[in-house]
Amino acid sequence: MRNLTESNLTDAVLSKLAGPQDVRFKQIMTSLIHHLHAFVREVEVTEEEWLEGIRFLTRTGHFCDDQRQEFILLSDTLGVSMLVDAINHRRPSAATENTVFGPFHVIGAPEFGNGDDITAGVPGEPTYVRGHVRSIDGRPIADAIIEVWQVRPDRLYDVQDPEAPGMQLRGKLKTDGEGRYAFWTIKPVSYSIPDDGPVGDMLKASGRHPWRPAHIHFMISAPGYETVVTHLFVEGDPYLNSDAVFGVKDSLVVDFQAHESGRAPDGKSVDKPFYTVHYDFRLTRA
Amino acid sequence: MRNLTESNLTDAVLSKLAGPQDVRFKQIMTSLIHHLHAFVREVEVTEEEWLEGIRFLTRTGHFCDDQRQEFILLSDTLGVSMLVDAINHRRPSAATENTVFGPFHVIGAPEFGNGDDITAGVPGEPTYVRGHVRSIDGRPIADAIIEVWQVRPDRLYDVQDPEAPGMQLRGKLKTDGEGRYAFWTIKPVSYSIPDDGPVGDMLKASGRHPWRPAHIHFMISAPGYETVVTHLFVEGDPYLNSDAVFGVKDSLVVDFQAHESGRAPDGKSVDKPFYTVHYDFRLTRA
Repeated sequence: MRNLTESNLTDAVLSKLAGPQDVRFKQIMTSLIHHLHAFVREVEVTEEEWLEGIRFLTRTGHFCDDQRQEFILLSDTLGVSMLVDAINHRRPSAATENTVFGPFHVIGAPEFGNGDDITAGVPGEPTYVRGHVRSIDGRPIADAIIEVWQVRPDRLYDVQDPEAPGMQLRGKLKTDGEGRYAFWTIKPVSYSIPDDGPVGDMLKASGRHPWRPAHIHFMISAPGYETVVTHLFVEGDPYLNSDAVFGVKDSLVVDFQAHESGRAPDGKSVDKPFYTVHYDFRLTRA
Repeated sequence: MRNLTESNLTDAVLSKLAGPQDVRFKQIMTSLIHHLHAFVREVEVTEEEWLEGIRFLTRTGHFCDDQRQEFILLSDTLGVSMLVDAINHRRPSAATENTVFGPFHVIGAPEFGNGDDITAGVPGEPTYVRGHVRSIDGRPIADAIIEVWQVRPDRLYDVQDPEAPGMQLRGKLKTDGEGRYAFWTIKPVSYSIPDDGPVGDMLKASGRHPWRPAHIHFMISAPGYETVVTHLFVEGDPYLNSDAVFGVKDSLVVDFQAHESGRAPDGKSVDKPFYTVHYDFRLTRA
């Protein structure tokens, strides 16, 4: 293995994978090396461009900490996350579609009962979200776990604010015996993904904006069913057709119905205008 | 741009590059996105594997600091560095071949006169290296700048040792009016690239060793000529056929001639066995 040139270098690198026991690892590395080398050949990367790439990756790594995951943002904005999502969740059309998980989910969100308020006191336009979780043949799924998370009206998630008093606009609910769920929140706003780092620079250089249309995140799981990771988007949002992370699907865009102050569907009296959302999730068998 | 699926997602991401002014940036990003998505499709990356990839890149970034460049190691061990090198240095066969630059070069190495000792007191087997720098048609190149750097006998570069008293085994020389250069150093040893990080894990999983055959790094530049970045390897080294970074070329493997203690070619009296190396570098016009 000497005198490697443009013509034989890729084969030489691949031949080094002759050893490993793990067939899947070998398959992944073979494809990765093939495509990485093909990319370098195709555009004939210069040394300065290579160094720029090294610097970009290093900076991206240095931006990652407990609160920020710049490599996930990179994957999201290059459409890789949605592609992985699509490949891993090929569902019958009757099932609720997945969309991107994103980097803002937190383990250990507070538990709520149906009809509770998950805002933790964050002010905004009151919104009552309710519906069913069912199997694709229409049977209600009881005790399904519903995790919900969303951005604050200041366009930050609680985890992006070191001064947040605790978890905000996050919660864990359970469907009742008839598969019903309900919670009070506030109407979500569109927001910019963090764009003060290398991913923001990449977007700028690409002539792209960093905005995502307003949405509420959902993760719904029940024994025997495939977990759904998805959003509900707000109909009418200006970014629905240009989501920075390519996540919008028509089936997930919902009407936030506006109401005058008064009595809400759960009987609660609301002293200012509010919204209601109705959405039924449909899960496939695992 | 909604309802993106496996079949139309890549085109949607590429269509976002419609804007940028920089033609080269667009060309690079187009090829990169194509190959990245093709890789994900080809092996059908699972969500757990995707997350493992995110973790790997993050860890690689976190290993990078002023002393360590893990992304360069990754590029080196995947053969990307040598491929970029080959593409950017297509030279006539009479010219000295390039090899990988590596992450251990330091700007501002001490300047030496011809015949000086660059070891900074690091003990080892004395080695006298000498030769000419010429153009490929044989004319001597005067005042060519020669930068030299090499690993210590403990298999670390000075920059890898926070307790190193200063620069060791590094120097900057200049050819004389007849294109000659000469310096004293010690015989280099084979060494392991840093393998306590993610790149080491990748090598282990691939069944690969992290060793490089013994070599001295050279960077030779002269006005009007293409800079040569290369090594001289030690004939007989056990790792010449399995260099972890794919850098060995026969034309760069040289005989370290062994001598009994006595008078060296420069007239110096050496009180223990020593080596001599003779190598002429040939530069092409820029």
